[in-house]
Amino acid sequence: MRLARLGDPGAERPVLLDNGKVLDLSSVTSDIDASFFESGGLERLRGGAADLPAMADVGQVRIGAPIARPESVICVGMNYAAHAAESGSMPPEHPVIFHKTPNTVVGPNDPVVIPPGSEKTDWEVELGVVIGRRASYLADPRDAMGHVAGFVLCNDLSERDHQLAVSGGQWSKGKSAPGFCPTGPWLVTPEEVDHRNLRLRSWVNGESRQDSTSADMVFSVEHLIWDLSQYLVLEPGDLVLTGTPEGVALSGRFPYLQPGDVVELEIEGLGRQRQELRAHS
Amino acid sequence: MRLARLGDPGAERPVLLDNGKVLDLSSVTSDIDASFFESGGLERLRGGAADLPAMADVGQVRIGAPIARPESVICVGMNYAAHAAESGSMPPEHPVIFHKTPNTVVGPNDPVVIPPGSEKTDWEVELGVVIGRRASYLADPRDAMGHVAGFVLCNDLSERDHQLAVSGGQWSKGKSAPGFCPTGPWLVTPEEVDHRNLRLRSWVNGESRQDSTSADMVFSVEHLIWDLSQYLVLEPGDLVLTGTPEGVALSGRFPYLQPGDVVELEIEGLGRQRQELRAHS
Repeated sequence: MRLARLGDPGAERPVLLDNGKVLDLSSVTSDIDASFFESGGLERLRGGAADLPAMADVGQVRIGAPIARPESVICVGMNYAAHAAESGSMPPEHPVIFHKTPNTVVGPNDPVVIPPGSEKTDWEVELGVVIGRRASYLADPRDAMGHVAGFVLCNDLSERDHQLAVSGGQWSKGKSAPGFCPTGPWLVTPEEVDHRNLRLRSWVNGESRQDSTSADMVFSVEHLIWDLSQYLVLEPGDLVLTGTPEGVALSGRFPYLQPGDVVELEIEGLGRQRQELRAHS
Repeated sequence: MRLARLGDPGAERPVLLDNGKVLDLSSVTSDIDASFFESGGLERLRGGAADLPAMADVGQVRIGAPIARPESVICVGMNYAAHAAESGSMPPEHPVIFHKTPNTVVGPNDPVVIPPGSEKTDWEVELGVVIGRRASYLADPRDAMGHVAGFVLCNDLSERDHQLAVSGGQWSKGKSAPGFCPTGPWLVTPEEVDHRNLRLRSWVNGESRQDSTSADMVFSVEHLIWDLSQYLVLEPGDLVLTGTPEGVALSGRFPYLQPGDVVELEIEGLGRQRQELRAHS
């Protein structure tokens, strides 16, 4: 199944994408959020979506993030060896985490505003994992997928001076500028994709930047969810970003983002994003 | 004004503490949360609380956190010079931040469960700032207090191996075990306390551990809120912890917490907490 949320910011309507049709989920749930997942919303949809009304004229409607604002956005750093190397680090021995504030989650094609004074705004294509069921102290990585609702494409936008120069080394400070987590277009349930081997790509102004596969993760999705659950409680609707592959501006190989640039990102089976960069006004 | 939330976890009722009386706020608001602050709830209470019904028999009722689960819990590290020194660091040049997951916020006297296998569970008494109005790109630290709803006492519990040994240096991993942010007993509005000079203390099994004052902060509350607003958007109901003074177990001067220990914390004007430590079962 592929789920999305369509409409203006704060007024998105949940929909099911079904063989080219856009089916309105309003009669099933008010949103794609914690209570939807907790109450077995995905299972209900699997049981029968045939009677849902199709939405017309959705061509010009904004695509929102496919999930409501999460309780937590937890990010994994340095989870691709080549990206760790381009950032000047060895691959980590244990998963490394930082946070984005939940209000950074926006639609996949919303314009990105460069923070005032920023000269180091950077892109990061990432496989996002949406939690479907509370996860605490999981016994084994093999239990992890039972707590996963699905996967989303995310851009873990970063301001590198905020992350590294004025942060005392704690990365979260450069990860939460307004709009710094474009998410979507779709939430895809696990049976539809092989999350262990998905091609991830990004482009700036049409030029390739990142081109890798989730098979190159240092720690697998299953390992990450199990590991995180030893340190905190993952809640339904939470979003876990699983790290970015090599090919970001921090490497020194590419310029940082400027107003007017266009970033595009794609993950196989999870859709594509396009963001225009704008100056802060 | 002093506000609190009384009742079982997840079923707390908002109250106003008024000259020894406990006044039921249920007719005014369903909770002390983002929409209460955003809609001017504090101003309405200032306008007239005379007609609120008093609650009886509250002596045995659990005290919850005085605010509903926040959207973000943002913590400032190394904000007292003597604590930075005991942790082996210089005072920071810029505020250093990390996060706790919002589900760590619990009542001030709830038992604390030591995480499985933990040998380094540590206490940190902190002045918590509750955001009352959205704050983004504030022009001046003097604007900060216009965005503050009030102050709370918090224990920023930490698992030092999770924070430092298995984290790749990103502290958040050791800050979000279940129940690791006891908060309250009260939310106190700014006019009732001089937040620039409040005595903060903690004890373990009755022995003094921390005894300092918020006057010793490296960065003031006003500076912190202004600084954070340059990097992220603070939402109504968010909780900002402003750092801990010296006297924690990480210093090597005191043992870490064990099952059966009792931690107590107090901030002048903000009340007192008492937590019994328990083994994970």
